[in-house]
Amino acid sequence: MLVVHKYGGTSVGDVERIENVTNRVAKAREEGHDVVVVVSAMSGETNKLIGYAEHFTSTPAKKEMDMLLSSGERVTAALLSISLQARGYDATALTGRQAGIVTDDKHTFARIESIDPTAIKNAIKEGKIVIVAGFQGINKNGAVTTLGRGGSDLSAVALAASLNADQCEIYSDVDGIYTTDPRIEPKAKKLDTISYDEMLELSSLGAKVLQNRSVELAKKLNVKLYAKSSFSDNEGTLIAEESSMEAVLVSGIVLDKNQARVTLRGVSDRPGIAAEIFSKLAEAEINVDMIIQNMSENGLTNLGFTVPHSEHENAKKLMESFNHDIEGMDFDEHVCKVSVVGVGMKSHSGVAATAFTTMAENNINIQMISTSEIKVSMVIDEKYGELAIRSLHQAYELDK
Amino acid sequence: MLVVHKYGGTSVGDVERIENVTNRVAKAREEGHDVVVVVSAMSGETNKLIGYAEHFTSTPAKKEMDMLLSSGERVTAALLSISLQARGYDATALTGRQAGIVTDDKHTFARIESIDPTAIKNAIKEGKIVIVAGFQGINKNGAVTTLGRGGSDLSAVALAASLNADQCEIYSDVDGIYTTDPRIEPKAKKLDTISYDEMLELSSLGAKVLQNRSVELAKKLNVKLYAKSSFSDNEGTLIAEESSMEAVLVSGIVLDKNQARVTLRGVSDRPGIAAEIFSKLAEAEINVDMIIQNMSENGLTNLGFTVPHSEHENAKKLMESFNHDIEGMDFDEHVCKVSVVGVGMKSHSGVAATAFTTMAENNINIQMISTSEIKVSMVIDEKYGELAIRSLHQAYELDK
Repeated sequence: MLVVHKYGGTSVGDVERIENVTNRVAKAREEGHDVVVVVSAMSGETNKLIGYAEHFTSTPAKKEMDMLLSSGERVTAALLSISLQARGYDATALTGRQAGIVTDDKHTFARIESIDPTAIKNAIKEGKIVIVAGFQGINKNGAVTTLGRGGSDLSAVALAASLNADQCEIYSDVDGIYTTDPRIEPKAKKLDTISYDEMLELSSLGAKVLQNRSVELAKKLNVKLYAKSSFSDNEGTLIAEESSMEAVLVSGIVLDKNQARVTLRGVSDRPGIAAEIFSKLAEAEINVDMIIQNMSENGLTNLGFTVPHSEHENAKKLMESFNHDIEGMDFDEHVCKVSVVGVGMKSHSGVAATAFTTMAENNINIQMISTSEIKVSMVIDEKYGELAIRSLHQAYELDK
Repeated sequence: MLVVHKYGGTSVGDVERIENVTNRVAKAREEGHDVVVVVSAMSGETNKLIGYAEHFTSTPAKKEMDMLLSSGERVTAALLSISLQARGYDATALTGRQAGIVTDDKHTFARIESIDPTAIKNAIKEGKIVIVAGFQGINKNGAVTTLGRGGSDLSAVALAASLNADQCEIYSDVDGIYTTDPRIEPKAKKLDTISYDEMLELSSLGAKVLQNRSVELAKKLNVKLYAKSSFSDNEGTLIAEESSMEAVLVSGIVLDKNQARVTLRGVSDRPGIAAEIFSKLAEAEINVDMIIQNMSENGLTNLGFTVPHSEHENAKKLMESFNHDIEGMDFDEHVCKVSVVGVGMKSHSGVAATAFTTMAENNINIQMISTSEIKVSMVIDEKYGELAIRSLHQAYELDK
């Protein structure tokens, strides 16, 4: 079996932890597998380098930042290879470029355009364990690029696809995907398996185990993904194509506290007004999350949306320019978003109703509702966030 | 004018020092020059990385060490570029590979085979200051290589030649080449100029400002070299082709304390015995410095040589196998080597005589003598080292 392992920054945070990773890789090797390992920078390194750059300017050139930040993963890759060799294993460390990863030109958030896996395949044929510096590639001009947040996960998934690997194991300090945040609900259970789509909803909703882009890519390229902990021998969670047979009704409940609500009342219902409002927000690079528009009455409509906490004041200012089109505005930064996710919703009715009933039973007022095929999200007062999570967890019997 | 600057580890040791380098580069730019800058890793970084590697093994693979250690120069190059940009200068940072540096396959002590300066030339044409990560290149297979000790000096000299630069300025924490070590003789004077050959003798004799390999390369490629300090505005020393008109008799006196003497008495004068002895030492990778053989008498000869302090015991052991060919052996690790260097010796007699007279006047016994066209070296008791340096400095009137 050919397996790709990916170890994040905390898993390779110091030389002792790199030894721990060495043990895991060696174990997979001893089990007879071919192993390709993708590594992140040692935790703290990237922030140290960013700190250096910010000594000079708050807006360093992105090309330079890529050259700066890509050094961290190279260090870890070389060290892990040295550690494996010291144990008698044949290993080789490759940079993103040497691993054949070619990206577009968008420095600091480049997209992988192609992978030439020849070098890795040859090394595997020679019996080597291959260590690849994650997070990085080169563009067509040969300049170093990086893939943005969670970039090493992306490297791992893309390499797994390009190598036709049997599975891709993403190691972090969390041992899998839970039905909800165990810090809020101690009865939260680790899921054995979850579908790509559910995982996408969960990660975009704030579950931090896997980045959205890497799950999207895994889905697109059909890569069997495992979320595991490098600090335990627990099984982890398999993220794969859903099997409708096993589809559970609800797989997880997520709390996102980084939300602020904007409600525009009495918006004149002329064509293009919504486009104007959201173009303005996009120009200011304000990420809009939920958007709700009610049916209009008397040519006027109510428009609601949420933005990240940090953008609340900016959004407020921007909306002022629409004063002539809007009767009144209402802003609330003390809200949170509670979401119920599950592929089972597709084929079962009543999931949303259970959510609303649970809120009502707990006297929690729902300010906004938004639903997708596999998700129900509700904006509520932030002080009820944890209570909502625990109540919903119980209502859907996720602790069973 | 096109100038190449090279800044060593102490010159870029922290962000404040990188700002200091930024000032120097900006000044050269303001004076109207095109500037290419080669940088080392921040001081301490390389040792930190070596420390990590040595946690796993004392013999890490050289390919991996190259990937590990080359990261330090990339960090400095990116940071200097960011710092220049923050001041409004157009700058770009390049890795050794991007700068077109191709080396042979000898990881950790690779030799530069070729440089394709196209990328640098294009960047200069666009009005950019070009920052190059020193010490590194890639081999023909695309693997990262490093150039060994003093490698960034080599990068700078090779780039200067390949770009046809007007001069190459090597910055360190010392402001030039002195007539002798100022810590031993406070009257030591900074030289305005020195020839490549003299500099080669001086650096191989222990003056640490410039590495031998980079001086050799500068001589071969006829690169005008300046040794300067990044911490002062002093003029520095120009290392260039000698001009016989200006040739001084003696340009410097050097003390090398890392010497141990081996004397083999009554060596049977059969053909090949010297070859056997020195082959044995070479096999054990013991660096032999001075070698002296006297005329033989009665088919027996005396053979003397020096080795580094640390190899003294090894040399002793190796010589035991020659017991049957040798009447007696004499070892002394309490010796040092004092050398007088100057191109003027080529055309002037009496330079050696002055050295011997000076030793005699101070009652210093000369144990071994070795001379080249531009150098007189003497092995003496190490306790007289400093006295010999000061006396010779005065005898040749180097303080005038």
